[in-house]
Amino acid sequence: METITSVKNERVKAAAKLTSSAKARREQGLFVLEGLRLCMDVVRSGLRCAELFVSEEFCAKHGAEYEALVACSDEVFLVNDAVLEKLSDTRTPQGVCCVVRMAAPASLLERAPATGAPASETDVSATKLLLLENVQDPANLGAIARTAEALGISGLLVSGGCDVYAPKALRASMGALLRLPVEVVDASREGSEPVLSLLEKAEALGFKTYASTPAADAVPVTEADFSGKVLCVVGNEANGVTPETMTACAERVTIPMAGRAESLNAAAAGAILMWEMVR
Amino acid sequence: METITSVKNERVKAAAKLTSSAKARREQGLFVLEGLRLCMDVVRSGLRCAELFVSEEFCAKHGAEYEALVACSDEVFLVNDAVLEKLSDTRTPQGVCCVVRMAAPASLLERAPATGAPASETDVSATKLLLLENVQDPANLGAIARTAEALGISGLLVSGGCDVYAPKALRASMGALLRLPVEVVDASREGSEPVLSLLEKAEALGFKTYASTPAADAVPVTEADFSGKVLCVVGNEANGVTPETMTACAERVTIPMAGRAESLNAAAAGAILMWEMVR
Repeated sequence: METITSVKNERVKAAAKLTSSAKARREQGLFVLEGLRLCMDVVRSGLRCAELFVSEEFCAKHGAEYEALVACSDEVFLVNDAVLEKLSDTRTPQGVCCVVRMAAPASLLERAPATGAPASETDVSATKLLLLENVQDPANLGAIARTAEALGISGLLVSGGCDVYAPKALRASMGALLRLPVEVVDASREGSEPVLSLLEKAEALGFKTYASTPAADAVPVTEADFSGKVLCVVGNEANGVTPETMTACAERVTIPMAGRAESLNAAAAGAILMWEMVR
Repeated sequence: METITSVKNERVKAAAKLTSSAKARREQGLFVLEGLRLCMDVVRSGLRCAELFVSEEFCAKHGAEYEALVACSDEVFLVNDAVLEKLSDTRTPQGVCCVVRMAAPASLLERAPATGAPASETDVSATKLLLLENVQDPANLGAIARTAEALGISGLLVSGGCDVYAPKALRASMGALLRLPVEVVDASREGSEPVLSLLEKAEALGFKTYASTPAADAVPVTEADFSGKVLCVVGNEANGVTPETMTACAERVTIPMAGRAESLNAAAAGAILMWEMVR
C-alpha cells in the first residue's frame, strides 16, 4: 500500500477536483465519498472504487470495514489528515475517502424487476417514479432521495439542477442516492429536449404523467389517480416545472393548502407528493 | 440616531450574546433577527424591537422598510459591517439586524379565535396542534414550522430541544416561527413534568392526543381519526417520543412505509404527519 502525505500529490489533486467539480465528475465518470457511513454504502451498493484513501487510525479502528472496502477498490493509499481534508469538503474528515466509479446509466422506465427484490419492487406494473427538473439545492435533492427510499418510491429521474454526485447531496441523502435507482436525464445522451422525449416514452409505456404545481386549479393530489405506473415531476425551487414539461405531462397535480402556500419548500412538498403516490 | 462602529461596544456585545446563547435569550426575553426578510416579519407579526441596528447602505436602499422597522423599534443605531457581522451568525450580513422582544407566552390549548382570522383558524373545535418534544436540529425545527404554516396547522408546542429563537431555526423556518402561534412548554413555568400536565389538560379540553412512532404496531396515520381537536407529538430525531409521553398520549400513530423506514427524517415525517392531520 502506497503512502501519500503531500496535498500536492497528483492523485490527491485529481480526487479533490472530483469533490469540487461536477464537470470533472461527469467527464471522468467518477465521484468522491467521504466518511465511514457513506463509504460503506459503496460496499452495500455493489459499486467499485477506483481509489481508496485511508488514515492509519481508520484502519486500526475499523478493521472489518477497511477489509470490505479494500475488496471493492482497485488501489489503496495510506494518507494523513491533511490529505483527507483536501479530498473532502468538510472540516472534520473521518479517516476514509473513496473515488467511486459511477454505475452504468439506468433506464428506469423499462427496468426489469430485480431478482430477489421485495414484491413491491418486482411489480413493474406499479412503478412509481419521481422526476426532479432543475432542483438546485443539494439539501433538497438529498432530502427527497432519502424520503423516496423510505417510502418505497421505485426510482428518481434527475434532469438538470444539482449534480446527484455532489458531496452535499450525497450526504444529505444519507446514501439514499447510492441505494435508490437513479437515472440522470442527460441532454448529451438524449437529444436537445431529453425530458420531453422521456415523457413521451413514459406515456407510450403506460405511465400516467403528472406535473406538480402550486396552481390552485390543478387536480388535488388527494383526487389524482396514482394507481399503476406513475411518473410525477417536481420542478425548480423558485420557478417550478418548466412550461414545456408542464404541457407534456398528461395532468397537473397540486397539494391543496389551508395555510400560506409559499411556505411549503421543495423537500416537504416532495414528501407529501410521494406519500400520496404510494399511500 | 446614535452611530456605533466598535464591535466592543457594550450594546453590541449584549446583542451578540443573544445571538449565541439560548440562556441569555430566555433570561432577557429577547432574541435577534438578521436580514431584511426576517426583520420585516417583525413588522408583520406585530412584535416590538428593543434595538434596531442598520447600515447606511441599508437605509439608502430600503427606505420604506427602514421606516416601518423604525416605527416598531425603541432605539435605532447606525452601524458598520464589522458590527453587523458580530451581531449575526452568518458571514454575509444583509445590513439590518434587530433585537426583538419575545411575545407574551401563548396558551394554545385554550386559545380564543383571533378576530378577522380565516375561518379555518377561528374554528377552535378543529384545532390541530403539533408538539415537538426534544427536537434538536434547528433545521428540522425550522422546516417543520414552515410546513406547519403552509398546511394551516393551528400552532406548535415546543418542549425541550432546540430553542425556537435560535438564529438557525428562525432562518430555516423562513420566519414561520414568528408568524405561527408557538408555545414554549417550559419546565420552570409548569412544574416538573410540563408535557405530561399539558397532555392531561389537552385531554380534559377534548383533544385527541397522539404520539408518533416508527413502531409498526401503532395505528397507521391513514386510519387515525384526526377530526376535531387533535394534538400530535413528534419526538427527538434519534430517540423519538419519550416513554412517559408515549404512555400519556391516548394513541400511538405511525407512518406505514414500504421502503427503508430509518431513512425518513424528522422534517419529512413531520410533513407527512401534518398533512394527514389536515388532509
